[in-house]
Amino acid sequence: MKNIPSSEIIAWFKGLQNDICRDLEILDGKAKFQEDLWERPGGGGGRTRVIKGGNILEKGGVNFSLVEGDLSEPMAKALKVEKAEKFKATGVSIVLHPKSPMVPIIHMNVRYFELSNGTYWFGGGIDLTPHYVDKEAAKLFHEHLSDACENTKAGYYDRFKEWADNYFFIPHRNETRGIGGIFFDRLHHESEGLNPDQLWHFVQDVGESFIPAYKEQALRFKDKEYGENELKWQRLRRGRYAEFNLVWDRGTKFGLESNGRTESILMSLPPEAHWDYDVQPKEGSREEETQSLLKKGIDWLGQ
Amino acid sequence: MKNIPSSEIIAWFKGLQNDICRDLEILDGKAKFQEDLWERPGGGGGRTRVIKGGNILEKGGVNFSLVEGDLSEPMAKALKVEKAEKFKATGVSIVLHPKSPMVPIIHMNVRYFELSNGTYWFGGGIDLTPHYVDKEAAKLFHEHLSDACENTKAGYYDRFKEWADNYFFIPHRNETRGIGGIFFDRLHHESEGLNPDQLWHFVQDVGESFIPAYKEQALRFKDKEYGENELKWQRLRRGRYAEFNLVWDRGTKFGLESNGRTESILMSLPPEAHWDYDVQPKEGSREEETQSLLKKGIDWLGQ
Repeated sequence: MKNIPSSEIIAWFKGLQNDICRDLEILDGKAKFQEDLWERPGGGGGRTRVIKGGNILEKGGVNFSLVEGDLSEPMAKALKVEKAEKFKATGVSIVLHPKSPMVPIIHMNVRYFELSNGTYWFGGGIDLTPHYVDKEAAKLFHEHLSDACENTKAGYYDRFKEWADNYFFIPHRNETRGIGGIFFDRLHHESEGLNPDQLWHFVQDVGESFIPAYKEQALRFKDKEYGENELKWQRLRRGRYAEFNLVWDRGTKFGLESNGRTESILMSLPPEAHWDYDVQPKEGSREEETQSLLKKGIDWLGQ
Repeated sequence: MKNIPSSEIIAWFKGLQNDICRDLEILDGKAKFQEDLWERPGGGGGRTRVIKGGNILEKGGVNFSLVEGDLSEPMAKALKVEKAEKFKATGVSIVLHPKSPMVPIIHMNVRYFELSNGTYWFGGGIDLTPHYVDKEAAKLFHEHLSDACENTKAGYYDRFKEWADNYFFIPHRNETRGIGGIFFDRLHHESEGLNPDQLWHFVQDVGESFIPAYKEQALRFKDKEYGENELKWQRLRRGRYAEFNLVWDRGTKFGLESNGRTESILMSLPPEAHWDYDVQPKEGSREEETQSLLKKGIDWLGQ
């Protein structure tokens, strides 16, 4: 069976970006995406779409990019691949920071990479960062991901959920970024025991799970009341989000170090973050409960 | 001539911390430092002192630490030193974020490192990050550093000023963190053509230049008027400060990756930071002028 042509993947990713932007504008009911088209000097470019000041979405981005060209020595080293002539990398990346501290932050990425020597892989992930963890809502979120995973292969959810727990982790805080989700990288149909179509459909299922999974969270919490206490906590949690992205996220790191488009990469940062010395949530508070749930290995489906 | 005993260096660093905290409290006139003593499981510990909510200082820290113990393989690798039995590292680190956007952010560090095999070195630096660059004030700041440098050895200022330009640089923004200052690392008296006393006095001169250099800046700008526009710009510049510290600062990186005390390391972060997509200062504005001065190689003394 033949591999999926990159042209098909690229077209589908662009379509996904369109669909998600449209659905998010409807969901938000106020803000509209602003688009920036950009070109990469070495080859390729992107379609950065950012949104701000919405009813629900305070700041966010839904970005498509396709970068291609000569594979440099440092890039080959960073990617741990053998030297090849050319590479192509394409994907859709999303981060949404809601206005309300009661609504979770969400991130999604699906990506495809290929080398002119025939190597290719898919990667991606979705994870949710509630400012306040609600166990029932966390279960609903993970159910969407479990469905997307198990639809392709039994065991995928457990495997990619564990991967997310390890990836979306802030070592210097000894806490996860949020309630996790799924994460996967360097998936090739052969090593997965799938045919090319099956693997590609899995990636598509992940991409398509974004809107239903996030819409459910946003609608559930968007009208929940909050005050200065919740906003203060949100700003501290946003600081942790910035810490993860700037210190530990391999995608951000690779982008910034390889001279990627800074404004597109850093659209993931929150609109605002606060840092204070050694903040400890009050005993018995909802903040303390959330803090206690920011750890690996929680069985959100079965709790 | 004998090397300076580490006990003498440690005692002097603690004294420097005391002096600087006292002088900053007097300068601020309102806020007082809070002290946290901490111990490091592998050996050593520190005296973290933080300040907040002052007349001038919104958030800052003046930290002393002495960490010592067995030198692990990864540490030896990260420090690019041959394996030795034991190490000792001590220093004073300062970052101050002023309330007013008209007053600059300042950073200083002086440090000493030794191995049980007899290797030792000094490192350190001071740099200033004005939210608004004022050329005359920048000159005054660099004059303090030039005096501290040239007092020990002709050429030190130029050498360490260039080093600071390269170190306090944000590659993904293609801008310097501020107007620079001086930076030096791994100085040993032999390779510097000095005797141990001369090198040690140089480090002391740098430490002692902090208060006069910063006091002058704070007093010059503390009563300058500002409004929402300046505060907005300050929050964006604080975002850049956080980006530098979290993405590029080798000290922060080393600390976070080697399981250092997170709250002491991240006292350097601003109280608040904002990110917005692709902000461009208005043509002809003071913000644009500052942006144009955030580059390497400016001769602040001779401009």
